Amino acid sequence: MSSKKILIIGGVAAGPKTAARARRLDPDAQITILEKGKYISFAGCGMPFYLSGKIHDFDHLYSTSYGVKRDPEFFKSERGVDVFTGMEAISIDRANKRVIARNVDTGEERVFEYDKLVLGTGSYPITPPIENLDLKGVYRLNHLEDAQTIKQALDAGEVNDVVIIGTGFIGMEAVDAVFSPMRTVTVVEFRDTLLPGILDPDMGTLLYKNFYEQGLEGRFGEKVLRLEGEDGRVTKVITDKGSIDADAVILAVGVRPNVKLAQEAGLTIGETGAIVVNEYMQTSDPDIYALGDCVENTHLLTGKKVYAPMATYANRQGRVVGDNVTGGKSTFKGILGTGVLHCMGMNVARTGLGEVQARALGYDIESILVATFDMTHYHPNSNKILLKMIVEKNTRKLLGIQGIGKGEVAKRIDVAATMMYYGGTLDDLLNLDLGYAPPYNTPIDPMVHTGMALKNKLEGVANTYTPQEVKEKLARGEDFVLLDVRTPQQFNMRHIEDDRVQQLTLGELREKLDQVPGDKEIVTVCVMGTRAYEASRILQGAGFKNVKFMEAGMEGWPFDMDDF
Amino acid sequence: MSSKKILIIGGVAAGPKTAARARRLDPDAQITILEKGKYISFAGCGMPFYLSGKIHDFDHLYSTSYGVKRDPEFFKSERGVDVFTGMEAISIDRANKRVIARNVDTGEERVFEYDKLVLGTGSYPITPPIENLDLKGVYRLNHLEDAQTIKQALDAGEVNDVVIIGTGFIGMEAVDAVFSPMRTVTVVEFRDTLLPGILDPDMGTLLYKNFYEQGLEGRFGEKVLRLEGEDGRVTKVITDKGSIDADAVILAVGVRPNVKLAQEAGLTIGETGAIVVNEYMQTSDPDIYALGDCVENTHLLTGKKVYAPMATYANRQGRVVGDNVTGGKSTFKGILGTGVLHCMGMNVARTGLGEVQARALGYDIESILVATFDMTHYHPNSNKILLKMIVEKNTRKLLGIQGIGKGEVAKRIDVAATMMYYGGTLDDLLNLDLGYAPPYNTPIDPMVHTGMALKNKLEGVANTYTPQEVKEKLARGEDFVLLDVRTPQQFNMRHIEDDRVQQLTLGELREKLDQVPGDKEIVTVCVMGTRAYEASRILQGAGFKNVKFMEAGMEGWPFDMDDF
Ligand SMILES: Cc1cc2nc3c(=O)[nH]c(=O)nc-3n(C[C@H](O)[C@H](O)[C@H](O)COP(=O)(O)OP(=O)(O)OC[C@H]3O[C@@H](n4cnc5c(N)ncnc54)[C@H](O)[C@@H]3O)c2cc1C
Ligand SMILES: Cc1cc2nc3c(=O)[nH]c(=O)nc-3n(C[C@H](O)[C@H](O)[C@H](O)COP(=O)(O)OP(=O)(O)OC[C@H]3O[C@@H](n4cnc5c(N)ncnc54)[C@H](O)[C@@H]3O)c2cc1C
Ligand SMILES: CC(C)(COP(=O)(O)OP(=O)(O)OC[C@H]1O[C@@H](n2cnc3c(N)ncnc32)[C@H](O)[C@@H]1OP(=O)(O)O)[C@@H](O)C(=O)NCCC(=O)NCCS
Ligand SMILES: CC(C)(COP(=O)(O)OP(=O)(O)OC[C@H]1O[C@@H](n2cnc3c(N)ncnc32)[C@H](O)[C@@H]1OP(=O)(O)O)[C@@H](O)C(=O)NCCC(=O)NCCS
Ligand SMILES: [Ca+2]
Ligand SMILES: [Ca+2]
Repeated sequence: MSSKKILIIGGVAAGPKTAARARRLDPDAQITILEKGKYISFAGCGMPFYLSGKIHDFDHLYSTSYGVKRDPEFFKSERGVDVFTGMEAISIDRANKRVIARNVDTGEERVFEYDKLVLGTGSYPITPPIENLDLKGVYRLNHLEDAQTIKQALDAGEVNDVVIIGTGFIGMEAVDAVFSPMRTVTVVEFRDTLLPGILDPDMGTLLYKNFYEQGLEGRFGEKVLRLEGEDGRVTKVITDKGSIDADAVILAVGVRPNVKLAQEAGLTIGETGAIVVNEYMQTSDPDIYALGDCVENTHLLTGKKVYAPMATYANRQGRVVGDNVTGGKSTFKGILGTGVLHCMGMNVARTGLGEVQARALGYDIESILVATFDMTHYHPNSNKILLKMIVEKNTRKLLGIQGIGKGEVAKRIDVAATMMYYGGTLDDLLNLDLGYAPPYNTPIDPMVHTGMALKNKLEGVANTYTPQEVKEKLARGEDFVLLDVRTPQQFNMRHIEDDRVQQLTLGELREKLDQVPGDKEIVTVCVMGTRAYEASRILQGAGFKNVKFMEAGMEGWPFDMDDF
Repeated sequence: MSSKKILIIGGVAAGPKTAARARRLDPDAQITILEKGKYISFAGCGMPFYLSGKIHDFDHLYSTSYGVKRDPEFFKSERGVDVFTGMEAISIDRANKRVIARNVDTGEERVFEYDKLVLGTGSYPITPPIENLDLKGVYRLNHLEDAQTIKQALDAGEVNDVVIIGTGFIGMEAVDAVFSPMRTVTVVEFRDTLLPGILDPDMGTLLYKNFYEQGLEGRFGEKVLRLEGEDGRVTKVITDKGSIDADAVILAVGVRPNVKLAQEAGLTIGETGAIVVNEYMQTSDPDIYALGDCVENTHLLTGKKVYAPMATYANRQGRVVGDNVTGGKSTFKGILGTGVLHCMGMNVARTGLGEVQARALGYDIESILVATFDMTHYHPNSNKILLKMIVEKNTRKLLGIQGIGKGEVAKRIDVAATMMYYGGTLDDLLNLDLGYAPPYNTPIDPMVHTGMALKNKLEGVANTYTPQEVKEKLARGEDFVLLDVRTPQQFNMRHIEDDRVQQLTLGELREKLDQVPGDKEIVTVCVMGTRAYEASRILQGAGFKNVKFMEAGMEGWPFDMDDF
């Protein structure tokens, strides 16, 4: 048996996963992890739950399910891996297959030899060009130490007016962690909607509507210029549009790959700024592998390189690298950009391309927004969800799906991601055999209904306007009838305030067709889209020439928020 | 436009769905539904939730989400469909394209013409050969009237010692509906385990262990011979093995397709006893379509015909028939036998072939049983689940998966069903881009971990015994070491009582290898399988020749139930 030297730099997810898998495959290899920080093998993704108190004990963030801390001792005894913490790799000597490292406390240098080198150097948080970031009360949420610091401030009652800068996944996880009726929480987002690039603007807006109603303050299209403070403590966030009181600021404007070591060693860096690897996770030097937050990935739909720093990729790639550094030939095929988030009681999930991304890439697409129940409406656990589906027009290939709601959306997005792995089409979706029972979904699963509605649209059976388009028509002062076909109770609870709105329930429509003006465009509207679709078919069947329905009904209508 | 006559027989799911879709596509067609019963368009699947009180109002079982009852009036006004209830079709005159029907109250006959005829005649419950089924207190759970009758009995306090005969989906939904600490609930199953044919025996047993601990009584491999009663009311269920007190008996031994009308009309009936249709849902008479519980389906993996009466197929097929009777060419490709159930706090889901079914069909398979958390173990909502995965050995094609647990399994089964639609393999599974966040799953999704474990098994990296095999080895008196590598606390809480058990935690194993006998077979065991797998790798790496681990650990060990 070999006694191969496998040297791994970085000790969070990518590194330790590689080490664990490699050990299981090669009992004799010398496996070593160098980590410049203090903690290893920790659940960064769990930090928000520690802040919110869902996880009581800090140690749980790096403990096994059977209560053993994953410290160097654990790696030695349970995985046979040598871990050096506080040990920073400072250069790679590829010619001699050695890494020079430095003890961060003593400054002492040390040389580590390798047969196979693995870079799991991860990412670092972007520091935006904002003045006075060194004030007390300014936090990040990227390392375990960050979580400890914020937690102490939370427990000390120092976090009452919180401003979170950036509304990507980490920003919104921070929101989820600190949001409470006892605090003012404001998010400031440079772009126009929540979770930009993750959700399309319409979905981001609908999600924000929910959060806004719960009390979250959003400032969009607004740029933070500087912070102000008193006695060295932050008191205000100054943007290009105004000022916000703050005793705590969390910076979450994204991360960048840690490529310094790789770059200095002459390894190829890609356009995304991350390390280039092939599907075996090999860098341009075949004896050096890289994975996790420091590498770029291939998008399975577009074939393009993307930077997508996610724990799930770090772990799955770790297994691939563990195979390959011990003589295997495993591959990591690429990604679809699947992501899922729980925030303020809402489930958020997405995979593939958004409408905006797909159009920017030149795809000829069709999309639909659907509101639906996540399970049989008569079940007490049922909740509404909104799904947006995007397909390529000519091939009907699924390009992307996004879901938000109190109800279950993660399942649907995983199913879609599975389909997309195979290049699945709308017709495939209609033929999937998904399990049905009342506490899980509807006899035709919500995802499948969404696909049917999109197919109807492609085939001219469903003619629609998006809520955004309806809003624009109204704003332009166009002459048309907005035919609300809901029950009077539903109408009275909430409706679009406009003279062009006419009321007729779906049940009375067939009998009262004469009350619908035959010379005007008719746009039907209901709660979720189904009745409005039905009404549009009735009207079209009765000879009305110019009929559409509003996608997703009032559930898809965010424009009566106080702010709009 | 045509004024085509579309005549539909059967008014529950298949019929009304066909009618609704056909109407949207053809505004001028005359669409008529004949239903011999009183209710139409009802949620039979919702009945258990009405019994348990989760649904308060009986009417909710056939109401829209906006509170309108789906009665003939609804079908007339909202769908433009004529419904005749209490109207039984008694014969089909194919030559003249007419159906003869009879009013079930008046006996009056009436003739309905058709251009396209649709049979959605559904299924009827099997009446087993048990004496005295006419006693009071004997129920079925197939029609809305059944639900009403049982509900009245429940409310009247007449249901205290319940015996449910049959443990298929409907039997177990009945269990879920009536189970309560205030009642004795016993299931009697002719076959050897719970949900036979749906779950493999090992999974059925593990599920039963959970139910048993909650207080459910199971009688397996036991045949009910007769009921006994007093004053016309059931008091006892007599089986071939004994007697059970009962003041209520629910019969749930399966359903058979309603094919009388089709058969008498000379339409082809398949080997399964159900109506034969092609992928357009056409019977042997191209102007007669059939769908739902009265037809047989094609299994997408085996290509074989199967009878699988499920609401989801009835509805999805209804949309296909709605397309085709109005001139379309939609197809229903087949099924995978996906099913999902919520019972006594447990989620149960399955798709594809079970191990037993696959072997019976001659597949050369490998399978694995895995216990895992459904999400990051540190999240307070995390729960354990058990997954069993079955692949074809040479192709590594996924053949089936079954899941049970308090945690989320339905999502995983839907993902597997999606993969199987595409003929997906284990290697595909490892490359799926499933969304990860701590409240939803683990960085490597539990399903993917299961696939990895199975791949390890196929590649000789994981060498295992199933819990059943370990039990048999113990019973045979074989000489081997059952090495329990859990923490002492975990061991003390529950362990296999046997002299062959030895204790060493995973953490101390590398140091204490000399305490492990080198000349004996070693079988490692832990809580869920992961540590035991790791321990097996350590031992193999250290030169131990005969090492295996027990799949799914103590979570997969049901054999210390009082009854075993
Ligand atoms: C709040 C939060 C929530 C998240 N939630 C999710 C989620 O829900 N789902 C998801 O998929 N992802 C999530 N992520 C992302 C996830 O945490 C990262 O993708 C993952 O940690 C990447 O692991 P990695 O090992 O590649 O890199 P990192 O975690 O960045 O670790 C790299 C390590 O390498 C060390 N290092 C770097 N250079 C050197 C050197 N020269 N010498 C020695 N050591 C070095 C660093 O100190 C660092 O510890 C979240 C992240 C955060 C911050
Ligand atoms: C308690 C329970 C729970 C269930 N749970 C689920 C579940 O969770 N998931 C799932 O997928 N499925 C479930 N099912 C199965 C589901 O209810 C059936 O698959 C579905 O009802 C089939 O619909 P169908 O219209 O094809 O047939 P049926 O529901 O059987 O309806 C057929 C109708 O046709 C009428 N008819 C028959 N012959 C004639 C005639 N000659 N003239 C006039 N009318 C006629 C009958 O009176 C009947 O009303 C459940 C069933 C039950 C009983
Ligand atoms: C924990 C860590 C060291 C990985 O170690 P690991 O030993 O591979 O992980 P686990 O203990 O979960 O074991 C997984 C192994 O057990 C197998 N397995 C899992 N459940 C099993 C079961 N019930 N039965 C049999 N095998 C099982 C898996 O297939 C895998 O083995 P393989 O890779 O050889 O195929 C690494 O993932 C890590 O450091 N994670 C924490 C950091 C992190 O991920 N942060 C970001 C997310 S918040
Ligand atoms: C209800 C029933 C009559 C079907 O009627 P339906 O009009 O097809 O059903 P819905 O009202 O849900 O509408 C579904 C239609 O709206 C579309 N749709 C659903 N949500 C939509 C939305 N938000 N926006 C736009 N369209 C939507 C669907 O695509 C579908 O249209 P299509 O078939 O033309 O593509 C029939 O399914 C039934 O009788 N069900 C009850 C009985 C039953 O299923 N029992 C067994 C299970 S318990
Ligand atoms: Ca509606
Ligand atoms: Ca374990």
